[in-house]
This record gives sequence, structure tokens and C-alpha cells, in this order.
Amino acid sequence: MAKEIERKFLVQGDAWRSLATGRYYCQGYIPTQGKQTVRVRIIGEQGYLTLKGPTVGISRSEFEYPIPLADAQAMLAELCEQPFIEKYRYRIPMGEFVWEIDEFSGENQGLLLAEVELTDPEQVVELPSWIGQEVTGDPRYYNSNLVTQPFKTWSMADGAEKQ
Amino acid sequence: MAKEIERKFLVQGDAWRSLATGRYYCQGYIPTQGKQTVRVRIIGEQGYLTLKGPTVGISRSEFEYPIPLADAQAMLAELCEQPFIEKYRYRIPMGEFVWEIDEFSGENQGLLLAEVELTDPEQVVELPSWIGQEVTGDPRYYNSNLVTQPFKTWSMADGAEKQ
Repeated sequence: MAKEIERKFLVQGDAWRSLATGRYYCQGYIPTQGKQTVRVRIIGEQGYLTLKGPTVGISRSEFEYPIPLADAQAMLAELCEQPFIEKYRYRIPMGEFVWEIDEFSGENQGLLLAEVELTDPEQVVELPSWIGQEVTGDPRYYNSNLVTQPFKTWSMADGAEKQ
Repeated sequence: MAKEIERKFLVQGDAWRSLATGRYYCQGYIPTQGKQTVRVRIIGEQGYLTLKGPTVGISRSEFEYPIPLADAQAMLAELCEQPFIEKYRYRIPMGEFVWEIDEFSGENQGLLLAEVELTDPEQVVELPSWIGQEVTGDPRYYNSNLVTQPFKTWSMADGAEKQ
């Protein structure tokens, strides 16, 4: 088990694009009744099964296991809610941190999110120039919620941040 | 992935007891919105994470992975609904089949179920003398439903089979 502590931001501009190459992610969720998350993810030829507990402050328990690609494909088709989350993920090391930028496609095209993982909730992070508004804790930006309320369905009233 | 095809029965009498030794199982479920099942199980010192799809006829897809004991314990405590399912499982080989008898304790004390796994839904199974009424497909006997509606809460009207 790991404790996941992360901060999440919108992204502004394109200056980050030259810093990394994206990898394609496809993931789906088994709809749960509570705040737990059960995620099936495929990155390249590798499947992953990830369970997360409820968020407490900005941290949550996380359990992740590699699984066979065929299992992940079957779970996505038979067990997960649609649409799946499709995105390119860019990993950008900056000092002691690694920024992950998710550029969504499919039903969430137009959304760009940057995440940074901390080892301690109080840790100070220097924000690169392409970091925009912080959205840590805003449930609209949870990947699991982007299945039921994809970015394309948001109205302008949902937030000034939609361009 | 495996396809699980099984038949389930009530158990009558004690003749089966001399045939096997029970092992203690503790398991819990992450409550899902659909017919999928996400189960965390501990047998002895080993944890397991199991996902099952919706039942189609008497078969359903099953994905099972061994996980560290500490992960299973943390998942039970943080992610799963209570009460947990506690039982002793007895494995009894009979010809080409293995019968599994679950003797429940805790909130489901008094319930005894026998299951046999088939390779084909049409396969003929000889029933031992200690096999009672068939309850295959009766949702009350799904382990996941025994969390929310434990056997101890059933009234006599729920079924003549409760002793």
C-alpha cells in the first residue's frame, strides 16, 4: 500500500510540450457506491488494477498491481463503466518533483491537468510558469468523475477555466 | 481470466464433517453500483483480490490475484463494507469434482453452503447424501449479499431452509 498525496492544477500555454513525450493511457472504473475507486488501466502492453480509498485531506490510500493485458481488456469491456478515460500522459522532472501532465482525448478532449506527488502534505512545491489554477480536491477533476461528467458536457458556467 | 460455473446447495446433516478439515476465510466487499463484485479475501497468511463480472446463466467472469497480507488487511479496514464474511471452508474431493462446504460464523452463523465448480454448464454431478436443496442463482446466498443481509437477520418466512 502507498499513501498518495498530490496537488492538481490546470495547465496554461504550451511551454511544457517541448519537455516530454506523451504515453497513451486508457482506463475505466468499476462504479462503486462509496468514495473508493477501482480502476483498470492499460499503458502500452501492460495492465494495472488500482484500488484507492476515500480522500482524507489531500491524501488517500492506494493499492496498485500489474495485471495481464488480456485481463485488463476483458475487465474494461465487461466490468467498467463507459466512456473510458483516454489521455496522453507527459512526465516532466523538475528539481525533486515529477510533474505529470494529462492531455485528455475522447469525451474529455480540451482538458489538460498537471499533477505533482508529494511525500508530505506540507511540502513546498515551486510552480512552473505553465501551471495555472489549482484544482486539488475539486471532485469534477477526478478521473473517475470525468466518466460520468466528461469535460465536453461542462457548460461555461461550470468554471471560468474551460476555454 | 477464468469463467466460473458453479452450482450451490444447502447442506444437510453432519456426514461431510469427517471428510475434511476446514480453513478459516475472512473476506469483505467493496460495494459496487452494479452486478460486479470486488472481493478482498484472507486465507491464512495470504491475501487475494478478486473481481467478478455479472452472472450470465450460471457462469461469470472471474479475475483473481494474490496480494500481500498487509494490503488485504488495510483494504478490509479502509475500503470494504462491514460486517466481513467469516467462514470455515472444507474441500471434499468426490470423483472428478471438488465440493467446497462453507460453514459461516459471525453474522452468518448457522448457514452451511456447498458449492461445486463445473467446466461446462451441462455437466452432470452426482450429489452426495449430505447435499440438500439447490440454491444456485438465489441472490440471498451470494456471499456479497450476506454482508448487507446476514443469515442471522433472515426471518423464517424468508425460506423453509433456515433451521
